[in-house]
Amino acid sequence: MIIVMEKGHTEAQLDSVKGTIERLGYKPHCIYGVERVVVGAVGHEDKTPLQALELMPGVEAVIPILKPWKLVGREIKPEPSIIDVDGVRIGGAEIVVIAGPCSVESQEQILETARAVRASGAKILRGGAFKPRTSPYAFQGLQVTGLKYLDKAREETGLKIITEIVCENDLDLICEYVDMIQIGARNCQNFSLLKKVGQTRIPVLLKRGMATTIKEFLMAAEYIMSQGNYQVVLCERGIRTFEDSTRFTLDLNAVPVLKELTHLPVIVDPSHGTGNWKYVTPMGRAAIAAGADGLIVEVHPNPLEAYSDGPQSLKPAKFDIFMQEMRKIARVMERAL
Amino acid sequence: MIIVMEKGHTEAQLDSVKGTIERLGYKPHCIYGVERVVVGAVGHEDKTPLQALELMPGVEAVIPILKPWKLVGREIKPEPSIIDVDGVRIGGAEIVVIAGPCSVESQEQILETARAVRASGAKILRGGAFKPRTSPYAFQGLQVTGLKYLDKAREETGLKIITEIVCENDLDLICEYVDMIQIGARNCQNFSLLKKVGQTRIPVLLKRGMATTIKEFLMAAEYIMSQGNYQVVLCERGIRTFEDSTRFTLDLNAVPVLKELTHLPVIVDPSHGTGNWKYVTPMGRAAIAAGADGLIVEVHPNPLEAYSDGPQSLKPAKFDIFMQEMRKIARVMERAL
Amino acid sequence: MIIVMEKGHTEAQLDSVKGTIERLGYKPHCIYGVERVVVGAVGHEDKTPLQALELMPGVEAVIPILKPWKLVGREIKPEPSIIDVDGVRIGGAEIVVIAGPCSVESQEQILETARAVRASGAKILRGGAFKPRTSPYAFQGLQVTGLKYLDKAREETGLKIITEIVCENDLDLICEYVDMIQIGARNCQNFSLLKKVGQTRIPVLLKRGMATTIKEFLMAAEYIMSQGNYQVVLCERGIRTFEDSTRFTLDLNAVPVLKELTHLPVIVDPSHGTGNWKYVTPMGRAAIAAGADGLIVEVHPNPLEAYSDGPQSLKPAKFDIFMQEMRKIARVMERAL
Amino acid sequence: MIIVMEKGHTEAQLDSVKGTIERLGYKPHCIYGVERVVVGAVGHEDKTPLQALELMPGVEAVIPILKPWKLVGREIKPEPSIIDVDGVRIGGAEIVVIAGPCSVESQEQILETARAVRASGAKILRGGAFKPRTSPYAFQGLQVTGLKYLDKAREETGLKIITEIVCENDLDLICEYVDMIQIGARNCQNFSLLKKVGQTRIPVLLKRGMATTIKEFLMAAEYIMSQGNYQVVLCERGIRTFEDSTRFTLDLNAVPVLKELTHLPVIVDPSHGTGNWKYVTPMGRAAIAAGADGLIVEVHPNPLEAYSDGPQSLKPAKFDIFMQEMRKIARVMERAL
Repeated sequence: MIIVMEKGHTEAQLDSVKGTIERLGYKPHCIYGVERVVVGAVGHEDKTPLQALELMPGVEAVIPILKPWKLVGREIKPEPSIIDVDGVRIGGAEIVVIAGPCSVESQEQILETARAVRASGAKILRGGAFKPRTSPYAFQGLQVTGLKYLDKAREETGLKIITEIVCENDLDLICEYVDMIQIGARNCQNFSLLKKVGQTRIPVLLKRGMATTIKEFLMAAEYIMSQGNYQVVLCERGIRTFEDSTRFTLDLNAVPVLKELTHLPVIVDPSHGTGNWKYVTPMGRAAIAAGADGLIVEVHPNPLEAYSDGPQSLKPAKFDIFMQEMRKIARVMERAL
Repeated sequence: MIIVMEKGHTEAQLDSVKGTIERLGYKPHCIYGVERVVVGAVGHEDKTPLQALELMPGVEAVIPILKPWKLVGREIKPEPSIIDVDGVRIGGAEIVVIAGPCSVESQEQILETARAVRASGAKILRGGAFKPRTSPYAFQGLQVTGLKYLDKAREETGLKIITEIVCENDLDLICEYVDMIQIGARNCQNFSLLKKVGQTRIPVLLKRGMATTIKEFLMAAEYIMSQGNYQVVLCERGIRTFEDSTRFTLDLNAVPVLKELTHLPVIVDPSHGTGNWKYVTPMGRAAIAAGADGLIVEVHPNPLEAYSDGPQSLKPAKFDIFMQEMRKIARVMERAL
Repeated sequence: MIIVMEKGHTEAQLDSVKGTIERLGYKPHCIYGVERVVVGAVGHEDKTPLQALELMPGVEAVIPILKPWKLVGREIKPEPSIIDVDGVRIGGAEIVVIAGPCSVESQEQILETARAVRASGAKILRGGAFKPRTSPYAFQGLQVTGLKYLDKAREETGLKIITEIVCENDLDLICEYVDMIQIGARNCQNFSLLKKVGQTRIPVLLKRGMATTIKEFLMAAEYIMSQGNYQVVLCERGIRTFEDSTRFTLDLNAVPVLKELTHLPVIVDPSHGTGNWKYVTPMGRAAIAAGADGLIVEVHPNPLEAYSDGPQSLKPAKFDIFMQEMRKIARVMERAL
Repeated sequence: MIIVMEKGHTEAQLDSVKGTIERLGYKPHCIYGVERVVVGAVGHEDKTPLQALELMPGVEAVIPILKPWKLVGREIKPEPSIIDVDGVRIGGAEIVVIAGPCSVESQEQILETARAVRASGAKILRGGAFKPRTSPYAFQGLQVTGLKYLDKAREETGLKIITEIVCENDLDLICEYVDMIQIGARNCQNFSLLKKVGQTRIPVLLKRGMATTIKEFLMAAEYIMSQGNYQVVLCERGIRTFEDSTRFTLDLNAVPVLKELTHLPVIVDPSHGTGNWKYVTPMGRAAIAAGADGLIVEVHPNPLEAYSDGPQSLKPAKFDIFMQEMRKIARVMERAL
């Protein structure tokens, strides 16, 4: 921590700050600048937090120096992590595409989608069985029936399956059925859920919250890892901004920033990140070009009658063209797809 | 729903849109403007959602007309709701102040705070027993011990008590101890928790998420009410914006907007909404002047050594002055405090 | 400046950073922490900027310590500035209200408004003669004719007048007519205009840009003052956020923050800050309660047929009630109105 | 315009709305829905604006139907525009790269940069002669001397040159020297400057403001075109959001959205859009993959000692590698570079 003293601070105030730093278990170290005195507090920062020193008279600001994470950081593990989803490896040489409908609606719907996305090259099938909807009156998902439909689709197609968890009490049930679990944007800082999922060993797709900074996003992953589950894939899916011509603003800057800070794989959701099927292909290409390790995309056999997220879903035929486009960019990035 | 056709749409496209509207159970009604044809879809909108019509060729936009809520709205209940927290009535003539530390840290700390805030005029004691912290390595709360300390403070002071729930499995336990339950900003769209809390009859303080629009905030309250619990108080606590000289941007516009749209009481949190004790008093005054029904404020006997949120906490002596300031504004607003 | 070295930096990298600091005219001063080495660069920071040191190998971050302003800051002038607009003093004991239509539309319109707002207690008449409109096809203002109408209204009512400048070439012309000049939100960082206005001695109302941080806002005022014009009043008028139920998000936090950082007066615009006449009164009250020195409000005799900003304009009769409400809050704040 | 009546409106209120619509020159057309009555106002919308109808009793909302632009839109000109910068064509089959330092600092600096970026494949040289700096004490540019240095660099290398205009009075001077003029983010809604530049026939690079919506951005271009200058290239350069790990949030969604709405070319600035040279290459790739027609990139021979924007500048050697990367993506997009 660096404590910046106000311009007109008194000697007594500086002494008091130094005394408090010592009392809290750190060693104070002063730099007398031309316009400011700054005090460095030397010590292990997992002791008492020092932020509250800004309450002391004569203190102008308290500036943290260390990054707050441990396990997610490149410092502790410089080489990239590869997350193994029952044989599908995310974060390695291959670009992995996860595809499927927003909601599981029927056995036919999910089977038809599964066959199509597999034929086009997707490796993991997505489909919501428990749906976090803005309105309590909107379709809330088929729940365990949905899981069974997904299971059947896996059996038939060999695709791995992923579904979103919205309540920690569903964890055991969901883990019985799926290969990977998704934590949605609205639960990105549901710390209770993060800890519970951290106690399993199932691979986790953690979506960035719509107002979650990159630092907070990494701390959310740290929650999961701190409980022992290191199988975490990060997903950028758009943030809330003033721009309203798209549903969210896809923050692709986050891809190289995350790649620099963490060893965890990073994938991108161009469906939620734009909210409009017409923009999914260009933004999917952009995501891979920015360095993403994979994509998650909404595909529905009949978007016009989808129970949810119709406007941003690709039809299977369009998804096939989408995959061809992705493949071209992947090749340039020297990655398989 | 209003469907706006593209300028150059064909007759066949228009027919197809009209046909689809009919097939989905609505009656189409066209207006032929100078530059655009718009189609109104007449019918009860709880049928199939029409948003996906924007996928149809020739359609430029689909514009919803109805507000998505029912129970929270002024349309269904024009007069203001008063929420009764074991005798403390929020939303009526009185401005209610909730005060206390961010975290319950010890029996002495919470008792000392309780006595002080009661003496200054607070009616409800806040104190976190289960803490949603950004870092998994930060203090996570005293949990059931914290609840017991709160209970003791209630017993001694007669204050009502409120604490935050972070995991739905703690619900029964927490309900045993407290008079009101808080759903924090990060759980504002944790729909599973909202539903569970909606199944109790305990008064709920629902905080706005940091990226939650006012519409979504009302839909979160609708989740609770849709389960039968009508005891909901809304709390504006700051949103995420680009401005970084305060922790959040307190959106006081939300107060008159919410007052217009909903009958539920609205309170404001100037502590989190600014992140700095120096701004709590002016923003508390501003909140009451904007029409808020109450305030929730962080008070700590020794902010410098608080386990969390020290920089934004008032000391008891400062809280007493704060309350005098609030009282003056309340009087102008013709409200008791 | 504080330079934070990466965890694994080499001695050679540290030496190179220290050497560069010296070469740029500063003295390096190291603190060896447990996990990081930080280097303070001691010297007058108006020398070469050091931010680019973050380009050097082994450097993790460069953190500025000093605030970038001089003349606007409380450090150089602790007591509040009072700006004298031909006898109307902004920043003193009195709350000053500026009122009038968005656009000057006719002699009758501006006279009728002037009489009404004066009768209700406004001290300065606003009215746009040169209009910055989002669309080139929208009404662009009456220009010099508008200035003449304003002048006439001043003559008849004794109100001081203010109008917005949108082009620096109009400066001499406008200065002939008005008592105070407004720089609008979209020109808050039009540095060329700021400098030009800084070379006059006319009082300036500087509106915050819709994406301007408080620091940048103060630097915009610094531009004007650096040219010798110290007559600057700051105006918070709402920032751009994700919330769309109001036109902008009025950032009232900015009032106490600005009051702490600068000696300049701060006023608030609840008309643009909400975009809806129904919210102008509560947010006007809130602004005064937050500590604002005045308000600027849109008033139009017939908002339904206003050339611009009708929906956020008060009718004269409503403005009169508005002023009664403001007076009550002003009294509590121990300020005249 | 669509006027939505409140649920409980009276017949008299509806009649009054219809009467007002007629008086303003439109024809009212009602749709009686199950829960709402909506009134369409049929007529040419360049008559009196109808937005203020929301002031009328019984009116819930007024919803515009038409897009506000004319000349920039695909409706009026479906095929893409190609802007010719003295032989360099932007918007056609070729990806055009504009490169150079933030500020022109000396003849040597700009010549060295020009030679390097030309060798690597850039077609246009950028360099600021008039600098819009946040601080009045920061380097403000070499002005006419800077223009002469640029001119010399053009002469020697054959590159076209572009510089930013910050004051409309410099327009004639700048036009004498450069091939293309840049309007910076802070002047995106400086309507006076837009109109003035619209009266020339010089190609214009218009940067999006940091809080400018895509609709407003298009209206800014419409300002220029409405004056007769159709040579406009749009530039996405990052918007202001809550995320602070990058200088701005590069909104690549804007690329496909703009491509859908307008025929004007769209380029991207990954230097300002990230603020960090390490992210310039991935985001440059992403921009091309999203469909951009070109890039503008900061290159400096010695970023560590640049007068401005050092941290986001590439050295010539890194720019050369950057261009190789861009070329690979361009090829996939079937575009020359």
